[in-house]
Amino acid sequence: MIFVDACFRKKTPYTPIWMMRQAGRYLPEYMEVRNRAGDFLSLCKDPELAAQVTLQPVEILDVDAAILFSDILVIPMEMGMELHFQKGEGPLLERPIRSLDDVEALYDYPEERLGYVYETIGIVRERLPKEKALIGFSGAPWTLATYMVEGSGSKTYAAIKKMVYTEPEVLHALLIKLSEAIKAYLLKQIEAGVNAVQIFDSWASALEREAFFEFSWSYMVEIAQFLKERHPEIPVILFPKGIAGYLDGIYGQFDVFGVDWGTPMELAKRELGERYVLQGNMEPARLYDREATKKGVEEIIEVMGAREGHIFNLGHGMLPDLPVENAKYLVELVHDLTRR
Amino acid sequence: MIFVDACFRKKTPYTPIWMMRQAGRYLPEYMEVRNRAGDFLSLCKDPELAAQVTLQPVEILDVDAAILFSDILVIPMEMGMELHFQKGEGPLLERPIRSLDDVEALYDYPEERLGYVYETIGIVRERLPKEKALIGFSGAPWTLATYMVEGSGSKTYAAIKKMVYTEPEVLHALLIKLSEAIKAYLLKQIEAGVNAVQIFDSWASALEREAFFEFSWSYMVEIAQFLKERHPEIPVILFPKGIAGYLDGIYGQFDVFGVDWGTPMELAKRELGERYVLQGNMEPARLYDREATKKGVEEIIEVMGAREGHIFNLGHGMLPDLPVENAKYLVELVHDLTRR
Repeated sequence: MIFVDACFRKKTPYTPIWMMRQAGRYLPEYMEVRNRAGDFLSLCKDPELAAQVTLQPVEILDVDAAILFSDILVIPMEMGMELHFQKGEGPLLERPIRSLDDVEALYDYPEERLGYVYETIGIVRERLPKEKALIGFSGAPWTLATYMVEGSGSKTYAAIKKMVYTEPEVLHALLIKLSEAIKAYLLKQIEAGVNAVQIFDSWASALEREAFFEFSWSYMVEIAQFLKERHPEIPVILFPKGIAGYLDGIYGQFDVFGVDWGTPMELAKRELGERYVLQGNMEPARLYDREATKKGVEEIIEVMGAREGHIFNLGHGMLPDLPVENAKYLVELVHDLTRR
Repeated sequence: MIFVDACFRKKTPYTPIWMMRQAGRYLPEYMEVRNRAGDFLSLCKDPELAAQVTLQPVEILDVDAAILFSDILVIPMEMGMELHFQKGEGPLLERPIRSLDDVEALYDYPEERLGYVYETIGIVRERLPKEKALIGFSGAPWTLATYMVEGSGSKTYAAIKKMVYTEPEVLHALLIKLSEAIKAYLLKQIEAGVNAVQIFDSWASALEREAFFEFSWSYMVEIAQFLKERHPEIPVILFPKGIAGYLDGIYGQFDVFGVDWGTPMELAKRELGERYVLQGNMEPARLYDREATKKGVEEIIEVMGAREGHIFNLGHGMLPDLPVENAKYLVELVHDLTRR
């Protein structure tokens, strides 16, 4: 698989590409299945429908990898927290975690309750062309903990930051519990057939440098190492969003570092390019315009070269109102410009 | 004034400190005046009450500078946009800007309608001890434009980013209009008596590198240069939040660079410390805890040294539920640890 080869820095016939949130609302085909499922969570829990939307971007855009359609919050949910998706407001977790008792009351083995995910993986892997990879994923412990402590999205992260500085032991207890669950969950995804895994730390940027390495990164690399020891053949991609200022501290045993659009590729290459394959990082909003897309692709390929050490991706998820034609154009362009 | 001397990199008896959003809800004295005013906007428009809350942090915390109490959105408001503050939802601007016609319909001289701000400045400067500085401010063109185009706070900034890539000429027209208004507004603040000005680009981090320099930074430095040519004695502080990855591109004629908490002070010092005095950057959430505050202060002073080239500040605004005692402790600690 070209995508997996690229993760291991093998030469590939062209630079592979996939897009974060490539299975999403900008695709009419996705909306059709989503409406059939009813709501977002029902779609995540229905292996047949989840498999269909996972496969759509490969069929429609010809990306080199599918990514499992699911949500990072299935872990807190299967740990016993009540999860709602409110229209236009984002996810809401009832009765946020605020004490050690709250942490201890969480169910320890959410991976046992996530059979629908492994079933989705099985269906997708069966239908996916052999040369296309399937990426499994999980939210990072810090990002999941942030949702669980804040109860919802937050602009200031005041509740969890208060915990960082006043009750770090409670937060560490939660992060340890999440890390153990994520290890087991990703292991099961691998056993079910994914060809790579990505850990999303969407809220890494909520932490100052010292706290980032203590409360976020240390757990991410521990999970990565656990997986690499058991499955060296499965690439591990880590994506801590928004930490351009902390790149010089990045360490650990994993394969691919995901670069967000706020971290210039040149900077990432200088700091990390020798140790890790880099994935990223076109600003998704460039896809509003064809010329802006072309310019964005050319600039990134100029920095990263072709076919080695780089996986093309957006620097964040697809936006719901981006034109599908431009997404198709992006994939073609990356393939064409980097083909030997 | 110690604060102004520090902005010009003169040796001072100790490192001066002020805090972003130091006049705010964490102070019971502020809440008392705010409740008297009715709502937030009425407080901004009442020179006597606005002056009182501007002065409070100097009296209560002994910070080295007061910052004018006002809001960055008074400019769009006085350009003719209807502004509401909704409880818990942040500000809302009615009928967002989406076309060149919308831009042209804006009133060109909002600074003429902002007499209440200059009056506040007059009252504050009269009552403020001579050795304490008064900082005037404005939102940066990019941040104001973002509010005006999005209509409210945004997680994805999709509307204005679409403009960046599909109608840059409309956005530039808006940014030019805002820049001219901000120049006139800050000039009038200086004439009314402020001793320094800060331009807040709170949403700088919404832009990828290339777009940041085109749509945000170029306008900020143009305003700074305009002011420095007319008032070289007034320090200009620029605060583009969340651009740790772009520091090597920073240029222009101004005095102080504001460092947010996501940009390590060591990195800022390496990239900018020789050219600009640095202001910042303790993580505000450290103020939840006395020990965390102490550690934060010590680490920053270790990097920045004492009494030269540094103004202590938080890396973002005070949070509403931070304990006042810890804010007092912070000011004392910075003064004590850096006193010669």
